[in-house]
Amino acid sequence: MAKAPKNAISPTRAEDYPEWYQQVIKASDLAENSPVRGCMVIKPWGYQLWENMQRALDDMFKATGHQNAYFPLFIPMSFLEKEAEHVEGFAKECAVVTHHRLEPDPDGGLRPAGELEEPLIVRPTSETIIGATYAKWVQSYRDLPILINQWANVVRWEMRTRMFLRTAEFLWQEGHTVHATREEAVEETERMIQVYADFAENWMAMPVTIGAKTAGERFPGAVETLSIEAMMQDRKALQAGTSHFLGQNFSKAQEIVFQSESGSREYAWTTSWGVSTRLVGALLMTHSDDDGLVLPPKLAPTQVVILPIYKGEQRAAVMEYIGQLTEQLRGQTYNGAPIRVEVDDRDVRGGEKKWHHVKRGVPIRLEVGPKDIEKDSVFMGRRDQPKSVGMSRAEVVGKIADLLGEVQQNLFDRAAQLRSDNTVTITSEADFRDYFTPKNPDSPEIHGGFAMCHFSDEDSLQDLLKELKVTIRCVPSDNNDTPGTCFSTGKPAEKQAIFAKAY
Amino acid sequence: MAKAPKNAISPTRAEDYPEWYQQVIKASDLAENSPVRGCMVIKPWGYQLWENMQRALDDMFKATGHQNAYFPLFIPMSFLEKEAEHVEGFAKECAVVTHHRLEPDPDGGLRPAGELEEPLIVRPTSETIIGATYAKWVQSYRDLPILINQWANVVRWEMRTRMFLRTAEFLWQEGHTVHATREEAVEETERMIQVYADFAENWMAMPVTIGAKTAGERFPGAVETLSIEAMMQDRKALQAGTSHFLGQNFSKAQEIVFQSESGSREYAWTTSWGVSTRLVGALLMTHSDDDGLVLPPKLAPTQVVILPIYKGEQRAAVMEYIGQLTEQLRGQTYNGAPIRVEVDDRDVRGGEKKWHHVKRGVPIRLEVGPKDIEKDSVFMGRRDQPKSVGMSRAEVVGKIADLLGEVQQNLFDRAAQLRSDNTVTITSEADFRDYFTPKNPDSPEIHGGFAMCHFSDEDSLQDLLKELKVTIRCVPSDNNDTPGTCFSTGKPAEKQAIFAKAY
Ligand SMILES: [Zn+2]
Ligand SMILES: [Zn+2]
Repeated sequence: MAKAPKNAISPTRAEDYPEWYQQVIKASDLAENSPVRGCMVIKPWGYQLWENMQRALDDMFKATGHQNAYFPLFIPMSFLEKEAEHVEGFAKECAVVTHHRLEPDPDGGLRPAGELEEPLIVRPTSETIIGATYAKWVQSYRDLPILINQWANVVRWEMRTRMFLRTAEFLWQEGHTVHATREEAVEETERMIQVYADFAENWMAMPVTIGAKTAGERFPGAVETLSIEAMMQDRKALQAGTSHFLGQNFSKAQEIVFQSESGSREYAWTTSWGVSTRLVGALLMTHSDDDGLVLPPKLAPTQVVILPIYKGEQRAAVMEYIGQLTEQLRGQTYNGAPIRVEVDDRDVRGGEKKWHHVKRGVPIRLEVGPKDIEKDSVFMGRRDQPKSVGMSRAEVVGKIADLLGEVQQNLFDRAAQLRSDNTVTITSEADFRDYFTPKNPDSPEIHGGFAMCHFSDEDSLQDLLKELKVTIRCVPSDNNDTPGTCFSTGKPAEKQAIFAKAY
Repeated sequence: MAKAPKNAISPTRAEDYPEWYQQVIKASDLAENSPVRGCMVIKPWGYQLWENMQRALDDMFKATGHQNAYFPLFIPMSFLEKEAEHVEGFAKECAVVTHHRLEPDPDGGLRPAGELEEPLIVRPTSETIIGATYAKWVQSYRDLPILINQWANVVRWEMRTRMFLRTAEFLWQEGHTVHATREEAVEETERMIQVYADFAENWMAMPVTIGAKTAGERFPGAVETLSIEAMMQDRKALQAGTSHFLGQNFSKAQEIVFQSESGSREYAWTTSWGVSTRLVGALLMTHSDDDGLVLPPKLAPTQVVILPIYKGEQRAAVMEYIGQLTEQLRGQTYNGAPIRVEVDDRDVRGGEKKWHHVKRGVPIRLEVGPKDIEKDSVFMGRRDQPKSVGMSRAEVVGKIADLLGEVQQNLFDRAAQLRSDNTVTITSEADFRDYFTPKNPDSPEIHGGFAMCHFSDEDSLQDLLKELKVTIRCVPSDNNDTPGTCFSTGKPAEKQAIFAKAY
């Protein structure tokens, strides 16, 4: 076996966190930049991870009564104009289709031709186009609620992009629902942020906090935006999902009107909620280490990889043994499904092969060679622990589901520990400044974390936040009923918020 | 129960086939036109059908060694210019993005701003953008083959659109593979058209013919295009899937080059293959009748619907009985999965409710009322047969999988019968003219079918076809080795082709 390098990823997290992130994506084959500005290519390993996320989320959406549908990619420009805050939020970053064909230009190349009467926007989100359809579907209270989700690509023309976290095109799901009452719509908004929190914690092994966004951070056009916020290993916050109570803003802009049971004409109440391929970036930054990607078993495309070790004529015996082992492992279930086992019999040196799977984050590796077979045992390595251990075949087969469960739990516990180690309560502006100021401003070390502060949301506070590049992540929904005074203005304050630097 | 109308769909197929098609889509809630020109809204019932198709196809792609990935929606205009035939094929129907934001215009509306240096095309198909990525991935013969599929939306700016059959935006999958040898690429092209034929016949219950396209009908840039062709109930042909052998055309345009085992630099061989939401239209036109949609059980979102019949206080007993029946039915498997059972307990009149499910094509309906419960029996209706029959509960539970299998087989057999009844061999131009000329030219009746003809592909033949609005669908791969003479020119001809009017 080749001697292991000290770390598979260079630079390490401590040395240069943003560059470490890019290098993990590269080493783990998740994605790469494309020739199209700001758009990425999601490679098979990254796409399988996204498919596993989709499958789990889709099941949760269906279990809460939603159905999937599909609406147009394009939005007529006039539709965006209808909701004033909404257009302001998205107009600056829209891809605009203005022509519908290409014709030869005099230089032998091509040029756009066939100008459209009305430009079309490539959807940055679909409230307006879906709302226009719902306005036709909704006539009576009997047509409500409408509970629909869409899996789709969307485009937001970001100037500074980073793979998975912020790209011009990304994949997501967007739920869009219509209700007869304010109460039902609020319940739906809360139900779906709970679904996201459940998914983040129980599938991604990523602890999150549910809370409400402050006015300045809401979705354009929303009455209230709920989010789940997670802490990455550089202690920055990442918003991993949002659920918006839209009140009657969009139903008034789009005339989503119904006749109530008593016969009156009323505007409906709408919600929307979404998560995106951003979750892949969140997953990466929550669990990965200086050797590459670390995947929670429930979402890993391959949960167990078997690495045959042999020379020449030993191959037949080793592969036969592995064939039996594979079948036994695939007969076990974890998280309600047969265990996903891969055998890597490529003609690649053993050390290189092992590191290939380490870097890609496979939860459990089993090495099997002639000596192991003599003892009817295997060498088992967990991605979340440094050392490999010998185990009898019977033991590894009997325990494989438990082992995967332990990895899943350990990843969650480690992330929860990091978050609790780096969450502080701050009551003065001086402490706040100190907490969010790196010791080395030229090349900032990993610093800060989540600061829980009572606050009153005024201009002077916003100036301070802008100066320190800190944002209000959310006002947590739970355990947040004790009043206090604003850490910055000293004014009475009802609630605490989480303050953090953020992605 | 309400008295049944004579037919649920008006007009009938015989009265006005194209309008019947639109009315079935409407009555079955599959889709509707959107406010965006040429784009449709796929409603939940239609989308579930597409999801079931996706799931089955995706499993088949994975079983043949393919992985999914995702590539950008946008293609830089210069990429399209590289392959001359390809750009000619697609330039006339491209959505072109020219700006990346909106700004207020003087009239209080919006206008496009931020002009792009290079216009971007919304992908009509992804050979060029995927090929540019493959050129980076492929260095050595060890990197081959590349076997990747993408599920995506694409846009072709069609002037005349019809839901599912031809829309500006549609959903599809596109496989794109790279191989070291011509032979392997040809094998892949053939393997995937076989996968499509298998899916069409065994899942959609739609008989198809595999064959090669003639030069004029090939994919722009392809060396050979294989297709599957099906006969709709108006006896027109519908191309349901294509698989293209691209030779080295795209690898030369895009520099997909590898070092061979012997060290030489060689251009790779590529293929692409795809099916789309067009399959939903094909499915509809193959099986549906004058009462609405008819779904093959393997793809039906709901395979069995249970309709409770009760008055007032009978409800509790009926629903309890149905709860047990539902559980028993869901415990049965059909086609390797638990049977999909829906109970429709909406507050809607019995006749209306029954027709709701007839129009949506649910394969089996079970009606259960107090009198049935006394006899421990149900009233069973098959969507492919006119009459309902009484059956004991034990019988229906024990036979439900067989019943679904019988419906699936019957739909295939009916479609195969229609095709064989309307396939003729034609050897003279006079007979050909006669076969493809309606008796009533002002309002053409359903006429024609598949004409099997020996042919030589010359200008005079093309003129005849244009006059009669007939196309060469494909040169069948099987049972096509007997030479003859061209029905039109009288020249020697090696092969027969299928001639038909087509979608
Ligand atoms: Zn035009
Ligand atoms: Zn700009």
